[in-house]
Amino acid sequence: MDKIENSKNYILTPGPTPIPPEVAVKASLPIIHHRSREFVTIYKDVTEGLSYIFQTKREVYILTASGTGAMETAVVNLLSPEDEIIVASCGKFGDRWIKIAKKYGIKVISVSVEWGKVIKPDDIKKSLKLNPNVKAVYTTFVETSTGVANDIKAIGEIVSKTDTILVVDAISGLVGQEFRTDEWKIDVVIASSQKGFMIAPGLAFITLSDKAWKFVETSKIPKFYFDLKKYRKFYMMKETPFTAPVSLIITLQESIKLIKKRGLEKMWDNYKFLARVSRCAMKALGLSIFSEVPCEVVTAALVPLKIGDKIIKILKERYGISIAGGQEHLKGKIIRLAHMGYIDITDLLLGFACLEVALIELGVRIEKGQSIIAIEKELMTECNNY
Amino acid sequence: MDKIENSKNYILTPGPTPIPPEVAVKASLPIIHHRSREFVTIYKDVTEGLSYIFQTKREVYILTASGTGAMETAVVNLLSPEDEIIVASCGKFGDRWIKIAKKYGIKVISVSVEWGKVIKPDDIKKSLKLNPNVKAVYTTFVETSTGVANDIKAIGEIVSKTDTILVVDAISGLVGQEFRTDEWKIDVVIASSQKGFMIAPGLAFITLSDKAWKFVETSKIPKFYFDLKKYRKFYMMKETPFTAPVSLIITLQESIKLIKKRGLEKMWDNYKFLARVSRCAMKALGLSIFSEVPCEVVTAALVPLKIGDKIIKILKERYGISIAGGQEHLKGKIIRLAHMGYIDITDLLLGFACLEVALIELGVRIEKGQSIIAIEKELMTECNNY
Repeated sequence: MDKIENSKNYILTPGPTPIPPEVAVKASLPIIHHRSREFVTIYKDVTEGLSYIFQTKREVYILTASGTGAMETAVVNLLSPEDEIIVASCGKFGDRWIKIAKKYGIKVISVSVEWGKVIKPDDIKKSLKLNPNVKAVYTTFVETSTGVANDIKAIGEIVSKTDTILVVDAISGLVGQEFRTDEWKIDVVIASSQKGFMIAPGLAFITLSDKAWKFVETSKIPKFYFDLKKYRKFYMMKETPFTAPVSLIITLQESIKLIKKRGLEKMWDNYKFLARVSRCAMKALGLSIFSEVPCEVVTAALVPLKIGDKIIKILKERYGISIAGGQEHLKGKIIRLAHMGYIDITDLLLGFACLEVALIELGVRIEKGQSIIAIEKELMTECNNY
Repeated sequence: MDKIENSKNYILTPGPTPIPPEVAVKASLPIIHHRSREFVTIYKDVTEGLSYIFQTKREVYILTASGTGAMETAVVNLLSPEDEIIVASCGKFGDRWIKIAKKYGIKVISVSVEWGKVIKPDDIKKSLKLNPNVKAVYTTFVETSTGVANDIKAIGEIVSKTDTILVVDAISGLVGQEFRTDEWKIDVVIASSQKGFMIAPGLAFITLSDKAWKFVETSKIPKFYFDLKKYRKFYMMKETPFTAPVSLIITLQESIKLIKKRGLEKMWDNYKFLARVSRCAMKALGLSIFSEVPCEVVTAALVPLKIGDKIIKILKERYGISIAGGQEHLKGKIIRLAHMGYIDITDLLLGFACLEVALIELGVRIEKGQSIIAIEKELMTECNNY
């Protein structure tokens, strides 16, 4: 292997995702002032684009923060200490809702399921009936740690009929998979920049329904940097309350342009196809899909003999391909290959070809070429559908 | 004027500041994963560089946030509700300490001075004696809104002799003006990326003394995203607790390289020179300096007839030059021309030449060319000093 030098790098991780070159170059343009007329125009354009991507008529606010900052925002603005909430978690990021809420003295009623399983909307319905004081239901759209997509539409249907609000972490799923804030009656949605949005990490987003704004009015948890009333006030002026991360927002303007040009529905279709291809390819290698209801942006597969981390190491060091492993108790047991953001079928072809070699190297008995044959088959089917 | 088209843009605002081209291009490089070995290497390099810039042997933590996020971090990690603090404010950003502290139920004893004046270290000394229960003193190094630099060294001397800790907002001053965290005995220092660091907004920094860490241990204000214990834990692993803003950190690595190559002391000398030149040029135009003790990164001058905002509009719209005006009750009354970040004498030459034209247009009686003559004179003196 010493003779071979791989100098290219591929990011097939569930965030950050690759950035399209026409978006990336914008990050290097000379800085402009965040209180200038040019920036106001860009900001207006970007916030309108965000409303489209969130599929909402409401305002979407931009925070300078990681996604977790937006999660915290959705806790400290809506609740008061001692409030009761339901958290429906099915993995690491769902569990983060519990951790944040507990820090702020919130009582958490858990309707969580085992990692790899999907949230049962009916569990939420039952829990809401049993616990009439519950203020809000917090859950996750795509649970990145397990590759599961939850039925947010069904959960929205249930929660919207009550006085409770529904808060959804859509960080990993937004842009990559059908998601309709208004139509699905979701009160609060959060997201961040480094996944489907195809830009670098550093921005987080949040949108709230009128019903949720009433909760903001009565919330008693102190906040300053994440105080949504400030963001709403400055939104009206097409500004941000604190210095905006100008360069990231300028790249966001460009990526929104790409998303609009392509159309969300078409993008959803494409990721759905990539997800199907990935699952077929995993199965062709004898690896079973970990997720009860697989999402369309990352494919999580069980690997034998806890070799997950070894696979990741080989792919990265020998072929420059980054994929993700299992987190916490899933460490070594699963691999996660993402197809979110700026990813297409060519990435999957090279990813799976190298995955085959890595598996063979690690002593897993597979039939060579099977994952590629499976992908080619899916491609042929797709061509015949035209 | 219709025949003239100015297509170049100049940022002479006190943040964001221009970005050196060799730093800016790094923002467009393909994204790398925040949990990869490459990033760990970059992160280690960057955090070591930050310690040099802060002039401290301690760890400096990187937050994904605006500077205000770091201010909030310095409140919620060090204090508990009902705690007493002294805030020594001399402007808008000093006042922000008061606003944040009050949100969290902290009792604020103000030793603030009128905007434009400098904090009197002796006032802090007296107040500490009068209020033995005070936990911490919060103040500002360079008050951007008034162009004043406070004597942090003297304040450090006073506070370090007590059980109280000193927290300094060094957002605008760091890199631009002599600042020595350890030598000046400052417990907590915060800063952000879009000023002296010469990169885009989006990152904030914080460093704490051992004395301050003891306050963290007893703090009872809830926090999650800004919980410094998390940042300390991940620092040891050369990682960040949440997805790091990879592209901003990569530009920071490059700007730190430039700062180290040049040397902090040399940079301080250069900004000191630019500040002296700016003050001379303002005075040559008949404008008096607003700041009792002017800082070295921005020059604030009083303008007649409240034409401050008109000056700014003309400079921006006709010549593409951004400078700042007065904030709140100073609106219209002052102009602020910054020389922080990637700025040199050529920027001042074009800035003042256009400022002269704008003043004449607005009916201010000045003698043409005087600010440029003043700058040239200072340049000659400097040349003779070689």
